[in-house]
Amino acid sequence: MKAKTVSESKTTVTEVVLPNDANTLGNILGGRVMHLMDITGAIAAFRHCRQQVVTASVDSLHFLHPIRIGQLIILESFVTRAFQTSMEVQVEIFSEDPLTGERQKTSRAYLTFVAVDESGRPKEVPPLKTRTKEERGRYREALRRRRLRLQEVVKKPS
Amino acid sequence: MKAKTVSESKTTVTEVVLPNDANTLGNILGGRVMHLMDITGAIAAFRHCRQQVVTASVDSLHFLHPIRIGQLIILESFVTRAFQTSMEVQVEIFSEDPLTGERQKTSRAYLTFVAVDESGRPKEVPPLKTRTKEERGRYREALRRRRLRLQEVVKKPS
Amino acid sequence: MKAKTVSESKTTVTEVVLPNDANTLGNILGGRVMHLMDITGAIAAFRHCRQQVVTASVDSLHFLHPIRIGQLIILESFVTRAFQTSMEVQVEIFSEDPLTGERQKTSRAYLTFVAVDESGRPKEVPPLKTRTKEERGRYREALRRRRLRLQEVVKKPS
Amino acid sequence: MKAKTVSESKTTVTEVVLPNDANTLGNILGGRVMHLMDITGAIAAFRHCRQQVVTASVDSLHFLHPIRIGQLIILESFVTRAFQTSMEVQVEIFSEDPLTGERQKTSRAYLTFVAVDESGRPKEVPPLKTRTKEERGRYREALRRRRLRLQEVVKKPS
Amino acid sequence: MKAKTVSESKTTVTEVVLPNDANTLGNILGGRVMHLMDITGAIAAFRHCRQQVVTASVDSLHFLHPIRIGQLIILESFVTRAFQTSMEVQVEIFSEDPLTGERQKTSRAYLTFVAVDESGRPKEVPPLKTRTKEERGRYREALRRRRLRLQEVVKKPS
Amino acid sequence: MKAKTVSESKTTVTEVVLPNDANTLGNILGGRVMHLMDITGAIAAFRHCRQQVVTASVDSLHFLHPIRIGQLIILESFVTRAFQTSMEVQVEIFSEDPLTGERQKTSRAYLTFVAVDESGRPKEVPPLKTRTKEERGRYREALRRRRLRLQEVVKKPS
Repeated sequence: MKAKTVSESKTTVTEVVLPNDANTLGNILGGRVMHLMDITGAIAAFRHCRQQVVTASVDSLHFLHPIRIGQLIILESFVTRAFQTSMEVQVEIFSEDPLTGERQKTSRAYLTFVAVDESGRPKEVPPLKTRTKEERGRYREALRRRRLRLQEVVKKPS
Repeated sequence: MKAKTVSESKTTVTEVVLPNDANTLGNILGGRVMHLMDITGAIAAFRHCRQQVVTASVDSLHFLHPIRIGQLIILESFVTRAFQTSMEVQVEIFSEDPLTGERQKTSRAYLTFVAVDESGRPKEVPPLKTRTKEERGRYREALRRRRLRLQEVVKKPS
Repeated sequence: MKAKTVSESKTTVTEVVLPNDANTLGNILGGRVMHLMDITGAIAAFRHCRQQVVTASVDSLHFLHPIRIGQLIILESFVTRAFQTSMEVQVEIFSEDPLTGERQKTSRAYLTFVAVDESGRPKEVPPLKTRTKEERGRYREALRRRRLRLQEVVKKPS
Repeated sequence: MKAKTVSESKTTVTEVVLPNDANTLGNILGGRVMHLMDITGAIAAFRHCRQQVVTASVDSLHFLHPIRIGQLIILESFVTRAFQTSMEVQVEIFSEDPLTGERQKTSRAYLTFVAVDESGRPKEVPPLKTRTKEERGRYREALRRRRLRLQEVVKKPS
Repeated sequence: MKAKTVSESKTTVTEVVLPNDANTLGNILGGRVMHLMDITGAIAAFRHCRQQVVTASVDSLHFLHPIRIGQLIILESFVTRAFQTSMEVQVEIFSEDPLTGERQKTSRAYLTFVAVDESGRPKEVPPLKTRTKEERGRYREALRRRRLRLQEVVKKPS
Repeated sequence: MKAKTVSESKTTVTEVVLPNDANTLGNILGGRVMHLMDITGAIAAFRHCRQQVVTASVDSLHFLHPIRIGQLIILESFVTRAFQTSMEVQVEIFSEDPLTGERQKTSRAYLTFVAVDESGRPKEVPPLKTRTKEERGRYREALRRRRLRLQEVVKKPS
């Protein structure tokens, strides 16, 4: 399979936070952020492998700043590394202040997606071709994170 | 503040998976599961502290089995430990087969919620009173997980 | 067909009332309550018969207290009696105050669901096995309500 | 207060049934029908009294024919009688076949709405002026139904 | 094919503007109005030809008055002229003030829908039979607008 | 007011087409496309003027290719010219095939947004600074389109 570059999977999603996305204090619900994060990540995985994908895991997440009704939420994703049938995707989440234009990073997440056929069986995905030093750094880190994830799944009692 | 028991925060959410919750293979989107998981967790935190709460972090998640359109998704949550202004909540996610009634655990998650006042400043929460051996085990584990989380936030480059 | 117990159909749905669920006074719309009531009832019927079900009728409903944005709405349902191809389900609806934890019963409803095959034809359902005095009371009452319903359908001019 | 005519409250709502409104057999969920029924009824009540309204009760409902994805659902409502602070509204629900144009009545409902001020206290509403024999028939029947409803609320154990 | 009258396609959609439909000033989003306008227009086209339809074009739109949360939005549509496989539909959009009942026209739109078969290929539609002077005026104007549209599509660089 | 560049308003929105966005043939509804188009355009206008905006008009739209369930819809917008209190925004809409990655332009739209204060009164917006030949071409064309729009509003009978 022909290798793909990082930029081939780059995805941007932009939304205005609506009243139904927020709690009674006017801050976006964590669950709404996670929903958008998963969609943005899945599109990047999808663009890398051109096959249907399912979410296999999400690394730990920390929400650093609240995002408010009327503000913009911007999500940017790309594939950091492709394995046999899975891809790690990085999603960064920003808020943008409506009046000042100030941007704040709210969270960064690593999600793993698996390419599947119509019966849900894993399918091979193309390798990732890194081009910059930054891309190669993330590529190396992705392997380390994958090992931690595999350990966790094993340890986890059902 | 008067301590609360684990059962005072127990919350059950049950839903039928609808077409819009699913991908074109008919499996629920990971993001939809996370959305429900956050709501179910927030209600447990809310019931423990009787104050507005915000999601601070979500530990790593692994999705073990897909859930399909027309199946039930059942989420069960309770507080495992309360700290000064935050609470760890466990959410377990099950699917239920429509015709056989077979239940499968799809995922288990640990979320941290912070109690906040109207300006978003952290507020003190009641301690948790454990009663069973199982509750005490989870209470101890919650501290270990909290330490890992704090390390992570510190390490994480912005 | 093997009889099922009442507890095999017990279902709990919990939700936070969101802005879009409410009128401009901040109270949940009756239609939103009915939507959740029907879903909660259908899941109970579904769990009893393990077949697809459709709503056949809803007995008269009275809304006793408003539920407000940010409050919890909790719905609890179970089968009260099974007939040849239909089941009567009781749904109780409660509000829970966010700060005090006070619960109020908002409504109680009786819905009838019919089990159907893929062409929409009625299918037989298992009988209900009652165990407590309370369950037997509801079982007797269900027959009385059924007779009233059948009279009404006959009377009703098209 | 100046009396209003029946036609001043007449309301029509038309919708195409979408996949998320339906069960896995492709039939609209009863809860979705009830949601639309309540909205259509509330608009009629609203047009009669020109004040905020809340749903107080819904008389028993029978669903005679299923409505399928892609079909039209048409709801027609008007006030049948106004009392001191409440109004009875009739809502009729039809399906329309996409290819033949055939219309079927699916249900007819009577809902009671109460006019309220900003604190939720009941407010007086204008009387209804009937003009045709049919309107007068429904006006008389509305009183009979109201008496049944009041009996029921009294009888109902909390 | 048997000609249809204008009134056979007449469609009314009525909705209450909800918080999620509006911006932070409380005014309905233009996109929400367009969404409802397209649905209302499609139902009229659908009723004329009794076949599946797709939106081909929308003439220029001007929004004259804002509509606010809690107000009613009323859309009225009918076919103005049928061509070989397409139909021009007029949609008029009104707001209705909740307390005074005052109605304002917010916009008027002309949309073109094409009847299609299951593979998306255009299908012939019945001609329109005009009855009143007003209907004939709109029928003539529809041809003029169609010519402008065809010119535009040709001119438009891809 | 300090002039802004075209790139300061550039906005990308990416979505997967879901079942509820589509008709029974599986093609996205025109109204859903318009909804997304308005949001994407409003964000660009918003980023240019850093004030609340309302949609004033939408130029004629032609949908060239259908977009199907499971495909991606990508919307790209930027300000083409700023006037006293209004901005013209161009929105381009693309579909992306899931398996081949093929992109097709589905539509291009010109929307006009007006900056408003809290009472809905128009507010001045910053001028647009063009940098490339292409930007200057669009800037000139925007004036021509504005004149056509003003003529139309005047002509249009209420």
